[in-house]
Amino acid sequence: MSSIEEKFSKLGTDHAPGQEVRQGGDLPESVLRGGLLSGAAVDFSHGDVNDTAFPPAPGALEAFIDGEGRGGAQAYTEYRGGAELREEVARKLAEFTGQPIAASEELIITPGTQGALFLALGATVNVGDRVAIVRPDYFANRKLVDFLGGEVVPVPIEYLTSSGGAGLDLDQLEDAFKSGVRVFLFSNPNNPTGVLYSPQEIVGIAKLANRYGVTVIVDQLYSRLVYSGHTYNHLCASEIAADRVLTIMGPSKTESLSGYRLGVAFGASHLVDRAEKLQAIVSLRAPGYSQAVLRTWFAEPEGWLAERTTRHQAIRDDLIAVLRAVPGLSVRTPGAGSYLFARLPAMGIELHDFVRALRVQANVVVTPGTEFSPDATDSIRLNFSQNHQAAVQAVQRITQLIDRCRAVVS
Amino acid sequence: MSSIEEKFSKLGTDHAPGQEVRQGGDLPESVLRGGLLSGAAVDFSHGDVNDTAFPPAPGALEAFIDGEGRGGAQAYTEYRGGAELREEVARKLAEFTGQPIAASEELIITPGTQGALFLALGATVNVGDRVAIVRPDYFANRKLVDFLGGEVVPVPIEYLTSSGGAGLDLDQLEDAFKSGVRVFLFSNPNNPTGVLYSPQEIVGIAKLANRYGVTVIVDQLYSRLVYSGHTYNHLCASEIAADRVLTIMGPSKTESLSGYRLGVAFGASHLVDRAEKLQAIVSLRAPGYSQAVLRTWFAEPEGWLAERTTRHQAIRDDLIAVLRAVPGLSVRTPGAGSYLFARLPAMGIELHDFVRALRVQANVVVTPGTEFSPDATDSIRLNFSQNHQAAVQAVQRITQLIDRCRAVVS
Repeated sequence: MSSIEEKFSKLGTDHAPGQEVRQGGDLPESVLRGGLLSGAAVDFSHGDVNDTAFPPAPGALEAFIDGEGRGGAQAYTEYRGGAELREEVARKLAEFTGQPIAASEELIITPGTQGALFLALGATVNVGDRVAIVRPDYFANRKLVDFLGGEVVPVPIEYLTSSGGAGLDLDQLEDAFKSGVRVFLFSNPNNPTGVLYSPQEIVGIAKLANRYGVTVIVDQLYSRLVYSGHTYNHLCASEIAADRVLTIMGPSKTESLSGYRLGVAFGASHLVDRAEKLQAIVSLRAPGYSQAVLRTWFAEPEGWLAERTTRHQAIRDDLIAVLRAVPGLSVRTPGAGSYLFARLPAMGIELHDFVRALRVQANVVVTPGTEFSPDATDSIRLNFSQNHQAAVQAVQRITQLIDRCRAVVS
Repeated sequence: MSSIEEKFSKLGTDHAPGQEVRQGGDLPESVLRGGLLSGAAVDFSHGDVNDTAFPPAPGALEAFIDGEGRGGAQAYTEYRGGAELREEVARKLAEFTGQPIAASEELIITPGTQGALFLALGATVNVGDRVAIVRPDYFANRKLVDFLGGEVVPVPIEYLTSSGGAGLDLDQLEDAFKSGVRVFLFSNPNNPTGVLYSPQEIVGIAKLANRYGVTVIVDQLYSRLVYSGHTYNHLCASEIAADRVLTIMGPSKTESLSGYRLGVAFGASHLVDRAEKLQAIVSLRAPGYSQAVLRTWFAEPEGWLAERTTRHQAIRDDLIAVLRAVPGLSVRTPGAGSYLFARLPAMGIELHDFVRALRVQANVVVTPGTEFSPDATDSIRLNFSQNHQAAVQAVQRITQLIDRCRAVVS
């Protein structure tokens, strides 16, 4: 096997969210336990942006049409995004995070938050660099490091047993940094578990980054969707050195604007410079007309975000209640975002077979835990940004199939 | 300097098309010759998509709005693009190129043609791989190879003196392939010169690729805009082995749809598979709602393409006539596309100073030849997809400034 083939063998997408359609429907008889569980199809691999669930934030399409009408000036922006728009977005993000952002130097607009993540890693990770990655965390993180030729240094979080925060062991993180780590990447709230890092954890990360000269990339995609009883702590507003941190966000999730492919990275200006150079050869710029849609971000109608948060929280609570009734299942109640990560009881079939059985027998798509950590062979992730009733019924079908597929205790 | 800093020092974008705004307006007095040359601003660094020049092909915005209306199914496609859409696009591209394309395996939809180019190179070039690049050619080509850690093997074309084709020396190409080249990348028509490769050149490339096991990536962005007296030869329809070629196209130029960020790569299925894996971590997918706009591609109203081609050809002819009147200036008449690449007479100032003087004194933006070849320190590229009258007047101002800045022959 040649080297490029090895490289791509690590980048499998067969079980990635949204790719299930490419797997086909065949399932060995040995895996099937009982007949079909009927009910409306629910695809928990991503949020439902249809009108019956969580449609795009108001004004998005109108802003796009206005952008198209501006013609060339909107189609051909600087690679880092239109200058006026960056002024506006920088102002809003500074207000949101509590940290000033210089629009001309410290912000880049990208094709989706995924684009921002790629540029951030591409701007910081070179062949052979050691990169600390949380386990579990967003499935693309380790693949990005693999593609760039870096070396993953896993840092576990004890999200199920921790009470106050994400369950990050700062001593373990320091050991990783001591071992020569150049970059630390994590999502807050954590994807897939929905746990928020505590103020102590955020301050601890900042201090260690400063002490060991580590660049920190923090994926804050879900930082606007925070449930009652929780507060959000922005790493960029902590004591971390300004040239050590890059923050990533976008309107694809809470705001349901994924179809426009918009994201941002902001922070250390030398990294934003590199990100722009890389964007120039990766995709030139975020889609020109779509950029205009960012004008509606953080400018939603009064009460819109609160209402969206309340509705998600209600779904969260109902799903958690159904899941907690399953003997042997463990799940942490998410503090933010729309993911939950359930650890299944001991099962009589393999995780990937169970996930396929769910799809084929119960009309439910979930993402296997192994996308987020090689150790998570007993967990599934659900994006519960769905129609409320359909989601509850789908999770009830999941619990039925769990019961059918349990390991037989002799 | 650390390794990642070196890597990015090669990826400069200061002189890249569209980035001129970041350069500022200061120019040393010593560079200025005479006063301002007034006239309507023309930005030859990219095409003008406004209504007074070449607006987007009909139906694009309507198709986008329809796509948005389809909701989640359009926002969250497979990473390689929606299945139905790929069927439609594959059928059209097969008809256009004369080569069958399997929609499920041999086509990926990307964020712009730039996205396709990045994925194609990312799928084929590993650290240390030798990659043959034409000189001059699209400015991102060598930067992509640099970013991926490959080694550029330049292959010159004698575009000014060649009569029948692009001026590729097939013996030189064979020498490059013999030296261990793994990948050959070229644009046809060539960007920046607008020359088309002859049937003999295309067949020669195909034979050499087969003989030496080289993968060829051909950027056919401008292959629909072909002027009278010229015919287009698709490499994918030549005798090249199907698993050796990947073709790149998109509707950003001829169709003026750059603001939607759409492109395609089609060909070798194992490379399309890799491209999709890479897309999953780079940008997830081409913008979902924008994908719907590809339905209008190759489905423009009767006569639309012919009219657009005729109008471009008329501008081309007028600009070439103005430029040919300049003593000492050389330019090849483009056979396709909307670029022309003019070699200036001996000048009394440096190329980059002349380009800045054009912007500051004559209200004209052009791209310096050094973006396309380190040797092209005497050439400028113009994208003449502009308002006809404004373009002619702007090129007249260019000729005036050339005369002012000529080297003084003693």
